[in-house]
Amino acid sequence: MYKYLCSYSVRTFSFVFRSVLLPALFSWLCVSVVGANIVLLNGSMYGSIQSPNFPEPYPKESEVQWNISVPDGHQIRLYFMHFDIEPSYLCEYDYVKLCSETEELAVFCGRESTDTERVPADDIIYSPGSTLSVAFHSDFSNEERYSGFEAHYSAVDIDECRDRNDEDLACDHFCHNYIGGYYCSCRYGYQLHSDNRTCKVECSDSVYTERSGQFTSADFPKPYPKSSDCLYRIELEDGFLVTLDFDDSFDIEDHPEVTCPYDHIKIQAGEREFGPFCGDRSPGRIQTGSNIVSILFHSDNSGENLGWKLTYTATGSECPVPVVPLNGHFESLQSQYFFKEHITVTCDPGYSLQKDGEEFEHYQLECQTDGTWSSSLPLCKKKESQRSRRSIESVPTDPVLY
Amino acid sequence: MYKYLCSYSVRTFSFVFRSVLLPALFSWLCVSVVGANIVLLNGSMYGSIQSPNFPEPYPKESEVQWNISVPDGHQIRLYFMHFDIEPSYLCEYDYVKLCSETEELAVFCGRESTDTERVPADDIIYSPGSTLSVAFHSDFSNEERYSGFEAHYSAVDIDECRDRNDEDLACDHFCHNYIGGYYCSCRYGYQLHSDNRTCKVECSDSVYTERSGQFTSADFPKPYPKSSDCLYRIELEDGFLVTLDFDDSFDIEDHPEVTCPYDHIKIQAGEREFGPFCGDRSPGRIQTGSNIVSILFHSDNSGENLGWKLTYTATGSECPVPVVPLNGHFESLQSQYFFKEHITVTCDPGYSLQKDGEEFEHYQLECQTDGTWSSSLPLCKKKESQRSRRSIESVPTDPVLY
Repeated sequence: MYKYLCSYSVRTFSFVFRSVLLPALFSWLCVSVVGANIVLLNGSMYGSIQSPNFPEPYPKESEVQWNISVPDGHQIRLYFMHFDIEPSYLCEYDYVKLCSETEELAVFCGRESTDTERVPADDIIYSPGSTLSVAFHSDFSNEERYSGFEAHYSAVDIDECRDRNDEDLACDHFCHNYIGGYYCSCRYGYQLHSDNRTCKVECSDSVYTERSGQFTSADFPKPYPKSSDCLYRIELEDGFLVTLDFDDSFDIEDHPEVTCPYDHIKIQAGEREFGPFCGDRSPGRIQTGSNIVSILFHSDNSGENLGWKLTYTATGSECPVPVVPLNGHFESLQSQYFFKEHITVTCDPGYSLQKDGEEFEHYQLECQTDGTWSSSLPLCKKKESQRSRRSIESVPTDPVLY
Repeated sequence: MYKYLCSYSVRTFSFVFRSVLLPALFSWLCVSVVGANIVLLNGSMYGSIQSPNFPEPYPKESEVQWNISVPDGHQIRLYFMHFDIEPSYLCEYDYVKLCSETEELAVFCGRESTDTERVPADDIIYSPGSTLSVAFHSDFSNEERYSGFEAHYSAVDIDECRDRNDEDLACDHFCHNYIGGYYCSCRYGYQLHSDNRTCKVECSDSVYTERSGQFTSADFPKPYPKSSDCLYRIELEDGFLVTLDFDDSFDIEDHPEVTCPYDHIKIQAGEREFGPFCGDRSPGRIQTGSNIVSILFHSDNSGENLGWKLTYTATGSECPVPVVPLNGHFESLQSQYFFKEHITVTCDPGYSLQKDGEEFEHYQLECQTDGTWSSSLPLCKKKESQRSRRSIESVPTDPVLY
C-alpha cells in the first residue's frame, strides 16, 4: 500500500476538478437542454430508440434526450440501424449526441461521413460506465425531409478481471468474472482475506524447540503473502539465550519517510522488543538475551516484496572454568563451559574421589541455568583401603548426571 | 417453410429417442447415484464448489452431486482451480463427472493426464444448455490422501445471433443479442411481423388506374419479403378488360407435391378467380375478362424466392366495323374498334350530314361499354340551301364526344 500518503493531494485535485472544471465542461458538452423531452430508460437490459415520428421524417425544433442506465457491472453497447439526419457543418443544425456522464462520446449528422461530420455507420459505441445519454436535436427548418434514426442498445457485462486496472481492486491470486461482477479466490493453501481480494496464509502454528533452526517468510524467496500476520515462536528451556541471524537477502515493503508503515517484523524476547524492521537492509544478528522469542511478521494488502530468511542458535549461561583438583583431572577440558555442559572429574591412580564423606570412581558436575556448577568440586584423597571403595554405578547418592 | 411435411417423422424419431434410447443412456452415463448428497445451485449467476472437507483431504465413500442451473438464455462456464483425485484406470475408483442433462461432458481423476484418464487442468467446460451437474465419487479406500478439487462456475450469455442455427428461430433481417436473450428488427421500410422474427412490408396501398402498367413483388428481383400479404388492385372504367402478362422471370416458393402451400399469387377478376400460382413457371398471359382485378400475393415466414414481374394492358369491348355511308367517309378508318374509340363521319362536298332531321358538318360515334356504337350512322344528303346549315360546334344536340 505504497500510495496512501498521496491520497490527500489526489482527493484535493479531484475536488477542484469536480467543483470548478466539470461545470465548465458541462455547459458546452453534455448538459441537458432546457425543455428537452427526457426519456428515462432504467429498467431494461436492452431496447431501442428512434427519432420522433420514425420511420416518418422527424419534426422541426425537436429536443429529445434518452437517459439509458443499466445495472452496475455492465456497460452499454449502442449501434444504429438507420441514420438520416440533416447534414450541416460540424452538425450545428440537427444532430444526435452521445454522452457518458460528462464525456461527449460522439456527435453525428448527415447521411455520409465528411471531413467535419460523422455518421455512425457500423460503429458500435460502448459507454465507459453503466449510463449513456442520447440527445437528438433538430432546428427550425428541414421539417419533413429527413427520416431520422433508429438505434439499439443492450447491457454488456464488464469483464473486471480483464479490464480493471485499479490495483487496489485487483484480485491477489485469481479473479473470476461473472455477469454483473467479479470475485477473487486464492491458490490452494491460502485463504481469502476479509477484504475479499487478498490471499493470506495460516502461519502462526510454528513453534521451534530445537536449539537451532531456520525459517523464512512464507513462499520465500518468492513474494510473501499479503494481509497476513505470521507468528513464529522459539521456545527453549530456561537457561538458553537465543541469537537470531537474518540473512542478507531481506526485502520487506517500506516507505522512504515513515518507519515501516505497511509490512514489518517485530521481535519480542522476554521484556525486550526489537524492530520493527523493514526495507532491504537485513537486521543481521540479534542477541535476544531470552530463551523464548516471538517473531511477528505483518504484511498489508499490497506489495510484491520477497521476504526474509532467519537462522537461530541458542547459547546457555556460562559457568566459570573450575580449577583441576590436586591429584585429579577432567575429561574433555574446555576453555568455556555453558548451560547443560558437564565436567567429569577422575582421580589419578592411588587416589579416590571423596565428597561429603563418600567415595566415588567418577564425579560429574553440570553447568546450571544460573551459570553455577551443580555442586562444588570433590577432592582426590589417597586410598585407605580396598574395603571402603564403592562403585558410583551401584549406589549413587550424590547428584551425578550422565 | 419447406420442411413442415417432414415434421411428423422428426417428431416420431424424437419420441422414440426419448422413450427408448434415453433411459438406456441414463442408466450408465449421467444418472444420479442413489444415496448421493444432492446440492441444488439454482439461484445464483455464479459460485464455486469444493470436494467434501476441502482443502483437507476428501473422505472415503463420498457421493455428492451439485446440480447447477442458470436462467434460460445462458449457459454455464466451469473450470477447476485445484484438482487432486485418486488416480485409477478409467477413473473407476474416485472421479469427478460432468453432465449436461443426459450427456456426459467429462470424467476426471488423478493429478496429471494419462492415456486413459484426464485431469481438467486449464480446460474450461461449457454446458450446452442452462444446466450442469457435477458428481463427485470416492470409493472405500484412500481416505485422507487426496486433497480433492475446487471449481468455479458462472452463467455466460448465449449469443443467439451468432450461435443459433435453427432457421425457424433466426431473425429475418437483423438480430440483436442481449444478456439472456435476443430480438429481431427489420430494415428501414419493413415492419416486424407478429412472429417477432420475420419482416413484412406494407404493400396493399397500390391501386392502378392507368390503362396499362407494370409492377413487381417487393424488392424484385431480390427475394420478396416474408410474412406479407400484398394486394395490388387494377381499377379501370367499366368496359375495359384487363390482360395480365407475367414475366418469364417468375419464382415463388412451392412444394413438389402440394399446390402452393407456402407462398402464392391469387387473382380475383369479377366473379372469376385465377391461381393460386407458385413455382418457377410463369403463368404467362391471363385474359381476366374484367375491368377490376385484384392480385393478392401471400408469402409465409421463410424462403428466399425472387418473386415476379407483371405487365398489364386493357382492351375495351369491340364494336362492329360500321359501313361507310353513301357519299361520306370516315376519318382514320380502322380494322377494329374498341371501347372509347371514335369514328368521325364526314360527307363528301355538296352533301351534308343529316340525323334525326338535323344537319351537321361532322358526326362522331363512340364505341360503348357494351360493344355498340353510341348511335346509328347519319346519312349524307345533298345540300338543299345554305340557310339551313348549322355548325356542329355551335349547337351540338346529339351525343357527340371528342
